[in-house]
Amino acid sequence: MPDLQNDRLLRALQRQPVDRTPVWMMRQAGRYLPEYRATREKAGSFMDLCRSAELACEVTLQPLARFELDAAILFSDILTIPDAMGLGLYFAEGEGPKFERPLRDAAAIRALRKPDMQHDLGYVMSAVSTIRQALAGRVPLIGFAGSPWTLATYMIEGASSRDFARAKSLLYDKPETAHALLALLADTVADYLNAQIEAGAQAVQIFDTWGGALSTPAYREFSLAYMARVVEQLKSEHDGRRVPVILFTKGGGPWLELMTETGCDALGLDWTIEAGDARARVGDRVALQGNLDPAVLNASPEAIRAEVARILASYGPGAGHVFNLGHGITPGVPPEHAGAMINAVLELSPAYHNGN
Amino acid sequence: MPDLQNDRLLRALQRQPVDRTPVWMMRQAGRYLPEYRATREKAGSFMDLCRSAELACEVTLQPLARFELDAAILFSDILTIPDAMGLGLYFAEGEGPKFERPLRDAAAIRALRKPDMQHDLGYVMSAVSTIRQALAGRVPLIGFAGSPWTLATYMIEGASSRDFARAKSLLYDKPETAHALLALLADTVADYLNAQIEAGAQAVQIFDTWGGALSTPAYREFSLAYMARVVEQLKSEHDGRRVPVILFTKGGGPWLELMTETGCDALGLDWTIEAGDARARVGDRVALQGNLDPAVLNASPEAIRAEVARILASYGPGAGHVFNLGHGITPGVPPEHAGAMINAVLELSPAYHNGN
Repeated sequence: MPDLQNDRLLRALQRQPVDRTPVWMMRQAGRYLPEYRATREKAGSFMDLCRSAELACEVTLQPLARFELDAAILFSDILTIPDAMGLGLYFAEGEGPKFERPLRDAAAIRALRKPDMQHDLGYVMSAVSTIRQALAGRVPLIGFAGSPWTLATYMIEGASSRDFARAKSLLYDKPETAHALLALLADTVADYLNAQIEAGAQAVQIFDTWGGALSTPAYREFSLAYMARVVEQLKSEHDGRRVPVILFTKGGGPWLELMTETGCDALGLDWTIEAGDARARVGDRVALQGNLDPAVLNASPEAIRAEVARILASYGPGAGHVFNLGHGITPGVPPEHAGAMINAVLELSPAYHNGN
Repeated sequence: MPDLQNDRLLRALQRQPVDRTPVWMMRQAGRYLPEYRATREKAGSFMDLCRSAELACEVTLQPLARFELDAAILFSDILTIPDAMGLGLYFAEGEGPKFERPLRDAAAIRALRKPDMQHDLGYVMSAVSTIRQALAGRVPLIGFAGSPWTLATYMIEGASSRDFARAKSLLYDKPETAHALLALLADTVADYLNAQIEAGAQAVQIFDTWGGALSTPAYREFSLAYMARVVEQLKSEHDGRRVPVILFTKGGGPWLELMTETGCDALGLDWTIEAGDARARVGDRVALQGNLDPAVLNASPEAIRAEVARILASYGPGAGHVFNLGHGITPGVPPEHAGAMINAVLELSPAYHNGN
């Protein structure tokens, strides 16, 4: 593998000095880009796109051709794991992900098995190694997975949910069955991320999209504990380099201190918490990633720049900040607005790293 | 008006001693009750139901006939105000509220006028006085309104929204126009709640359903400031009794201290914050209302009772707690599960008020 030419992301995730704040965007390869929509058209279904290493690589690199980003992130979906477990993932037009065979009882949960990483999920590892080769060391490649709880919600509900009635009933009514499911998912997520690391991922992020829907005790018991179980099992080094782990619970602002105890390197922040307040709370235990409200990208470039400036000032001087959105970029954003955000980080952030 | 026989709610909202923790449920008159569905059928549309003082009174009283609740809450909708401003509220089957004429530009916002409380919203005041008469002092009647920001989101988006792209663009791109809209809405909400108080509401709640979608600075500037403007203008007494004001920002956990500065009497808590932690933060400045995850009501009565016990213990002994859900009860909940929650509060909470 060629040497890494831009290690800002990896350094910032380990709170090491950098010349400016690194920047990437959740869902940076996605529907807001016309070139993505063209490739998606060519591929057929969304999952066809994920399953083709060449096309997944093509879309992963598209935002890097447009913008001066400091990382690439694997183009894939968090639901590849339940799909590999036999639940039958499909995407109904304009409706989000669905499963043909959601988990409807304890017997269905007991019947689940850990998928084989090469046999059942080899297409993801092929995509990772293809992308890593194509990047040729330009920027690091981030791998990712859904959190055990987040995967469980989709597996139990069979689709996106508003209030998680079924999934939460399992937690409250049959906690031992919930724990069995979450333990299996945690071990699978760990295997999956380790396989991505072996295939070439240089940092990994765990997306806990629905942890914020839980009460504090339920979050600790059913989401955080299993993310900790994942982190414990991850390879912390590969090819002589530390592989940083980012934990992102959307709506996780109340639990930042608890999250640092998992042993992760960095926390993703949504936009409901100030970067400076978060930094004061976590101290030097972890780096922080975030936290622009993606809706700001619908506003004018001037307004976007002002919000970038505000967030950089809130985090303040010194290492340990990765600029990002507080959630994925939305399909309607004009690409040049994403560019305005990235350029603002490039121009305004060096002032916060003068000491280096 | 007959004397109030049960003043637990009003006392608790003012942090005065009570014999047990009072309890009511957001959306306690609603689709989970078969008797509600029968009245709704009879009424025609949802708004027909709101517009009939007799039917609105009928559904308001239905949960009180089933359960030992400590309050009634006016059956109505937060969107009566924008409807009265001419936006044309309607409910598409299974799709939530929509407006025929959403606010699409600054000119539409400038053209808005404060509705006349008697002429345009007199049906709400009729419902309030009819319900108050029918209650005959059994429990207090709570009036309510949406927060200015929450109303603005529906008025700008024209419907429920996932990411508030239009509404947030207004905040970031045309803050002065946003402020003009929010100021008009705040003054209207204040008039509306004062009219409800004059018609018989004995406490009022401001529902800031979408404040939690904002960043901290945007929340302070565009949601909280206008709730403060409402609270300032409210009659604090009527008929010789204090009329307590409850502020509920869903997802407002990070901002509790700021919310106390509005001069409200109580804060509504969703379930992502522990009642005890919230109490430690706000001290004796306000009472707290909440905070059971409504999804728990889908679980077994035993699990429901355990969660009630946990929340009562978290708040701890002494005055200032009103038991409630952390958001509205959902349509699929079996009524007897709501009963299990209420009975658990009745049975378990006196132990926390021994001193009185």
